[in-house]
Parts: sequence; C-alpha cells; structure tokens
Amino acid sequence: MAITVVGSVAFDTVETPAGRSERCLAGAATYFSLAASYFTEVRVIAVVGEDFGPNEQAVFDAHRIDTRGIERAPGKSFFWQGSYVDNLNEARTLRTDLNVFAGFEPKMPDAYRDSEFLFLANIDPVLQRRVREATPNARLVAGDTMNYWIKDHKPALLEVLKGLDILLINDTEARMLAGNSNLVQAARAVLGMGPRMLVIKHGEYGATAFFARSPKNAGATTFRAPALPLEEVVDPTGAGDSFAGGFFGYLASQSELTPGAFRRAMFYGGVMGSFACESFGTERLQQLTRDKIDQRFALFRELTHLD
Amino acid sequence: MAITVVGSVAFDTVETPAGRSERCLAGAATYFSLAASYFTEVRVIAVVGEDFGPNEQAVFDAHRIDTRGIERAPGKSFFWQGSYVDNLNEARTLRTDLNVFAGFEPKMPDAYRDSEFLFLANIDPVLQRRVREATPNARLVAGDTMNYWIKDHKPALLEVLKGLDILLINDTEARMLAGNSNLVQAARAVLGMGPRMLVIKHGEYGATAFFARSPKNAGATTFRAPALPLEEVVDPTGAGDSFAGGFFGYLASQSELTPGAFRRAMFYGGVMGSFACESFGTERLQQLTRDKIDQRFALFRELTHLD
Repeated sequence: MAITVVGSVAFDTVETPAGRSERCLAGAATYFSLAASYFTEVRVIAVVGEDFGPNEQAVFDAHRIDTRGIERAPGKSFFWQGSYVDNLNEARTLRTDLNVFAGFEPKMPDAYRDSEFLFLANIDPVLQRRVREATPNARLVAGDTMNYWIKDHKPALLEVLKGLDILLINDTEARMLAGNSNLVQAARAVLGMGPRMLVIKHGEYGATAFFARSPKNAGATTFRAPALPLEEVVDPTGAGDSFAGGFFGYLASQSELTPGAFRRAMFYGGVMGSFACESFGTERLQQLTRDKIDQRFALFRELTHLD
Repeated sequence: MAITVVGSVAFDTVETPAGRSERCLAGAATYFSLAASYFTEVRVIAVVGEDFGPNEQAVFDAHRIDTRGIERAPGKSFFWQGSYVDNLNEARTLRTDLNVFAGFEPKMPDAYRDSEFLFLANIDPVLQRRVREATPNARLVAGDTMNYWIKDHKPALLEVLKGLDILLINDTEARMLAGNSNLVQAARAVLGMGPRMLVIKHGEYGATAFFARSPKNAGATTFRAPALPLEEVVDPTGAGDSFAGGFFGYLASQSELTPGAFRRAMFYGGVMGSFACESFGTERLQQLTRDKIDQRFALFRELTHLD
C-alpha cells in the first residue's frame, strides 16, 4: 500500500565528534521516505527552494519516491545547522532558516488521494490536520510532533491527536505532553488523547510501543524493541524519522495488520534508525538493500531473543 | 551451586514520591541474597551492629540464607538516608553513617570456602580482592562497584577486575571506568581490563550484556534485556543489587553455563530488579515465590519477543 508523507525536505549542516557535513540532503520527510521506500511505495508532500536541484531529485527518483507533491518555490529550501559535539544525544541548534518552508501550504496531488497510509511528520499541527482531512480514505494514520508544538500549540496538536491511529514521539515529548514523569502513566494519558498506539522512542535504548486496551486486546499492551549498540554514531540526525519510515513502511507492506506485524514493524523501525546514524545526512539510507535491512533485522532478533 | 556474597547489610531511610520508609532492612548484600535465594543457596559475609535484631535475622532465615558470615559488632549497622523526591532515577544522599561498616574486615567461615560462585558487591576493592583470594575454587566470580571507587581507588579496582569473570555496573560507571562516552567502545575497554562479560544496567531501559570475543564465541557478543515499564516505582533503591541477585542466582542454579543460560539470567536479573522497585526496602523481595518470578519472566519474554 502506498504511504503519503507530509513534512520537511531540507538541507542540514551538522557537526558531530565524527566530523562535519555541509548542506547535506535532509529533513524529516526525506529520512522518512527513504527509509520507507525499501518496503513500499512512498509519496511526498513538501516544499523546496531553487537550491533543490537535479542531484537532490535524483535521490528520490532512485528510490522511486513520488515527488509530484513537492512544490518548487522561489527562494531557498529549509536550512538547519546543528552540533552534537558536546552531546550526541541532543543537538544544539546553531541556525534555523525556514526560507520557503515559512509559507508552506501542503498541496495534495490528486494521484495521492487514494493513499491508505498517511504519515504526518513533525510540522505545524494546523497543517497536519489539513492534510489529514484531505485524505479521508486513509486506513492508518501516524504522526510525529515535537516539544515546540506541545508547549506552545497544544490545542491544535490535541485536534491532530484525535485523528491519529499512531503517535511516535520521544521520552521527553511523551512526559511533556502528558505532564507526567512516569512513562507508563504518561503513555496511558496520551492514549486517552486519541491514538490507539503510542511509540515512545528512547534513542540508544530502543523504543516502547503502548497499545490502548480494547475488548480484543486485553493481554499484552506493551512491546519493547531494541536499538543497536553502535560503535560509532556518525550523525544521529533523522534517526527518529528513519525509525518512523521503517516502522510505517513495513506496516504498509503487510496485507494484514496483525499484532505480530506491529512487533516486527517496531524492529524494522530500530533497524532503519540504526542505519541512519551510520553516516551524515541520508547517505547511508540511500545505499541500502532489502537484504542488508533483513540481515540487520536478524541481528536485532539475536540481540533480544532468548532462543 | 552455592553463592557466597560479600557486601553491606544496612538500614535505609528513604523518601520517594510514593512516601517515606524509616530504617528498612537494606544494603547491597541483603538485596542480592534475597533475590538470589529464590534460585539457589546463598551465604553472606557482612558486618552488622547491635540494632540488627531477631526480626532482621528472621528475614534471612525465612529464605534459608546462611548468615554465619555476618559478624555482629558493637555499635550500629551501616545507615543510609536518601531521597528520590526530585528524581526517581538518582538518589540524593542525605546521610551516610558507616558505623560498624567502617572497620569491616570480611571473615570467611570455613563452611563457605567451597562456594563455586562468588559475588563481590559494591565495597572497597581492597576487601573485594581479599575475599576473592580467600575463595580460590570459585568457578564464576562476579562483582559490582561504584563511581567513588572508580574515581578515587582505581588502581585497587583494576586489580579486582583482573580476577572477575563478570562485572555489573551502570552506564555512568561504564563510561567513567573506560573514559569513553560511547557505550560499545567503553564496553570493549572494560572487557580489556579482565572480565569476560560486562553487564551494563540502564535503569528503566533494561540492561546490555557484552561478551568478550573468543575463538569459541565469534558470533553474538551483545545481548539486550528489557526492564518492565512500571506504573509506579515505589523505591528504586537496590534494583541493581536485585538484578545482580536474580542474574547470578539463576546462573548458579544451572548445571551448564550455556549462552542461553546467560541470556535467561539477564532476563531474571530484570525480573528481580522490577520486583525490588515495587515496595520500600526489601519488602517485595521477601514475599515472592518462584512461581510469581516465572510468571514475570514470561511477561518479559512477551514484552520483547516477536513471536
């Protein structure tokens, strides 16, 4: 099944203990769609500037990602500069130029309207909601957000949550959204806001899925997937978006959304997140094969399974 | 197989968001031996004061823990007072009275000398080494330490590490000991100091085992075990010692130390750590049954396994 994703396509300049990379192709929708492209057909809605040239287009084309929903606007693409030199777990933002992203009005090509899977990457919840409403036939809708929207745009965000099946956020965001420092209690509060499933990403410690209790699902309501202990984290930018791409891409490739499919999707999320950290920008995600992905999936199983 | 453990038997006064508990029976050797007692025979070496009375003795007796190595000294037992009110992940120490523990000279009863399993809980590495040397027939030796010994007593600690098969420490301690912030690189450095296996405890995110590469073990060198997402952490004191007790107790109960046994031991460690957090002091650990433990083990499997 095809996934439509709305989010940022951007250029990043990043410094980490491993080095520095100038203006590499990045942005949540880029990480997400590259990661998901190994599993299913992906369609992107975004806006870019005149600096988005044939080289960047070629990256999407090589993965057969539909870019008809990427609008070209006069000016420059979204640009972010950050440093992880002091702390690999948290970026220090040095510069953010919204550029053409400041006036982003997501436009849904007609060819996207039949998408049964929709991913709302981390953008203004007002825009997330608009895209959600323009995809009434979506069978499964997942989304991301960040501290900025939780803190200063909560009413709009709460409206989005009502229309989400799955929310993917990190520990800090979950605690902030729920106003509760206990992760289990926070998860229950967030599930009360709309989503049927909450995925809390713990960075290098993996991720936990919390499922809303239902008459059909009285048993296991939690699942924990690992992250790969990495010898060198070159650049953690986009790991969360790549997790979402692997997770949602795998789900969209399944004919039936069984509990087992959600568990495997959590593992594939971790797999794609681990690849994303191995190079600057989206470089590593551009060069994978399904075979390499499945080899790492097997490694994740070995890392966690008793037998 | 019997385990000998050397460490502290103490009284703790603890404040957490869940309440306050006055002078509850605690100490690393207490948590460890109670947790391990559900799996195997345990023998304790420690020192207590005159405040250690029949009620405290009865706790050990009820679990058939051999206390002939617990010396009674004039004065008071080790006392610690701490608060987790601001941060459940890190205790703020309000008071430490070493009392009789200040002059602790571990004495090994003759009846303990045949122990094939030895656990050196977190005490002065000079004492850890002395107990190690007094147990020459130990087949498997594991130990713990803390930031204080790593920072100010490193040469003595490095001597202990040479005689350890397994070291159990937390993330911060591993990074500090190796002088390396990358956990995989830090683990490799620590494995170079002596132990064949390093267990790094991640608190609420579980624990990772790193195995030294060997000709026989060229494959999997890492294993990740979960922690249980707990709805309420009443008192996290002793969770790490209880992890060690479950982990090492299970190993000592096995006729063969296969790779599978080490994996299951990591799960049993997490299981006992999760129980320890559910009440103040060692209360919850006192009331378990092997059945309840195995039920939670099954829950840990369900929490992490794909099928």
